[in-house]
Amino acid sequence: MKVVAGIDIGGTNTKFGLVDEQGVCSEVGCLPTKGFTDPVYFVEELSKRILRLLQPNHQLIGIGIGVANGNFYKGTIEYAPNLPWQGIVPLASMFEQKTGVPCILTNDANAAAIGEMLFGGAKKIRDFIFVTLGTGLGSGIVSNGQLIYGHDGLAAELGHVMVIRNGRTCGCGRKGCLETYVSATGIKRTVYNWISRGEKSVLEKDKDKLQSADICKAASEGDALALRAFEFTGEILGHALANSVAYTSPKAIFLFGGLANAKNLLFEPTIRHFEKNLLTIYKNKIQILPSHLEENKVAILGAASLVWNQDVSTILIES
Amino acid sequence: MKVVAGIDIGGTNTKFGLVDEQGVCSEVGCLPTKGFTDPVYFVEELSKRILRLLQPNHQLIGIGIGVANGNFYKGTIEYAPNLPWQGIVPLASMFEQKTGVPCILTNDANAAAIGEMLFGGAKKIRDFIFVTLGTGLGSGIVSNGQLIYGHDGLAAELGHVMVIRNGRTCGCGRKGCLETYVSATGIKRTVYNWISRGEKSVLEKDKDKLQSADICKAASEGDALALRAFEFTGEILGHALANSVAYTSPKAIFLFGGLANAKNLLFEPTIRHFEKNLLTIYKNKIQILPSHLEENKVAILGAASLVWNQDVSTILIES
Repeated sequence: MKVVAGIDIGGTNTKFGLVDEQGVCSEVGCLPTKGFTDPVYFVEELSKRILRLLQPNHQLIGIGIGVANGNFYKGTIEYAPNLPWQGIVPLASMFEQKTGVPCILTNDANAAAIGEMLFGGAKKIRDFIFVTLGTGLGSGIVSNGQLIYGHDGLAAELGHVMVIRNGRTCGCGRKGCLETYVSATGIKRTVYNWISRGEKSVLEKDKDKLQSADICKAASEGDALALRAFEFTGEILGHALANSVAYTSPKAIFLFGGLANAKNLLFEPTIRHFEKNLLTIYKNKIQILPSHLEENKVAILGAASLVWNQDVSTILIES
Repeated sequence: MKVVAGIDIGGTNTKFGLVDEQGVCSEVGCLPTKGFTDPVYFVEELSKRILRLLQPNHQLIGIGIGVANGNFYKGTIEYAPNLPWQGIVPLASMFEQKTGVPCILTNDANAAAIGEMLFGGAKKIRDFIFVTLGTGLGSGIVSNGQLIYGHDGLAAELGHVMVIRNGRTCGCGRKGCLETYVSATGIKRTVYNWISRGEKSVLEKDKDKLQSADICKAASEGDALALRAFEFTGEILGHALANSVAYTSPKAIFLFGGLANAKNLLFEPTIRHFEKNLLTIYKNKIQILPSHLEENKVAILGAASLVWNQDVSTILIES
């Protein structure tokens, strides 16, 4: 049985596993990224571990890697602020040398978008946008059935579309980026700001160690400020996604990650403001949906699907 | 010699001509669109005229049509406000029946983008955005060497990205759309607003019949208000294009049409504000360029290139 190794490199841990052609993910492992200051040893150790996972009936056909600041065209990680490795690291070719199989690498949100296309809710959809709402806001855009990489492999940074002129300061150095409002960090910032200016909420006693899950819980229990924070977040996201549609006119937009787990607290206001702000020709035909992928497996699955997607294309060309 | 008929359907006139594989446009004609209240007679008359243009050594291999509200997937014109025909008109199939050759149809800005790719400045560029600055702001987006049509054939409406919250009222019924600021109409509106509130300019005596060319002339001659209007327009366009890059990460952005003819009056502030507002990873590598296409031929050339592009793809698959 053919299998692909999916690797999700995070700042703290690297998760990896084997994924078959049906998207079934098994034989999962974990390695502390921070423990490896030299990427050479990281690749050596991880390659060993992956080869050790293989069962007698397995044939490893490739390795897919999802990682922040991953460059698809070059197979490199470039200046990743949260990883222990400096500068540009040619990770894909390093894995290829160690394992003898092809290795494909891209950023984690792009990988997850391909995962959604091959194994999730976008199986028959050729035009969609995938949005991850975690610490930041990541995204992948698929048009004509292909991920949009852009000329430099760095397309689809929806989190850094500036949606409010002179708005909140962003980690990127600019102002008003979507992710400063719409992300786990963004909604925490909203609640913190409102409480700091004296508004009342059950969240005020823990305002300095607030988690987005706390805001979700407070909103579910009827806290007015928490509910308004979701309305505010949904308004900004709905407006921004209405603008996004004017670029690639997707059939669906998938939301994934911590904040998307708030379900209707986020989806209801987002969809309402989305429809309200859409250009007439786009109204009532684009769905905003939760991702169909399992949260604890999406990173490995998405990474592996880079290779499966490539393989499927090859098969299509050959037949 | 193989030729393609390119048809540009405008509200007043329909221009058409024959285009060869090198993008040379000859045998041009014109028909008053408004004279035909029934599209059946329009197709009949235009088909006759096209066939009459053919020289003995010509082989007509297809017809390409650029038209506002053209739907590429269906070959239809849908509810075009400026054309004499109501509802949905299956124009492509009507031409196919009359002429016996395949007919492809899309909106005029998409057609011009493909024209730029086949015959203009984007010959070797696989990722670019094409922007037309006329009465409104039209656009076509090319990624991975393919035009992005979206799931419904209606992608790339950059003129209707809402760039200013609660900004100027747009013809589409919403507020703050890019084309209400950045287009011939938009810059006229800017100047008119400023003069109406009492600001001084050489343009004030003709403010009710202002043309964008007048503003360009006044700016060239040093009129402070006209110069500030270009700065203002360039600021909004530069900011909007910086956001656009976060979607498809193009290698170049081409500007075309009336307002782009103002050359550096528009390009200088646009590029300055573009670079200032770009996310760091995109800085200093994306060019904003004037279109290389001849203004009076772009519509016919763009329309014809729809067919040539199709033909080229076919050749590539076969070889």
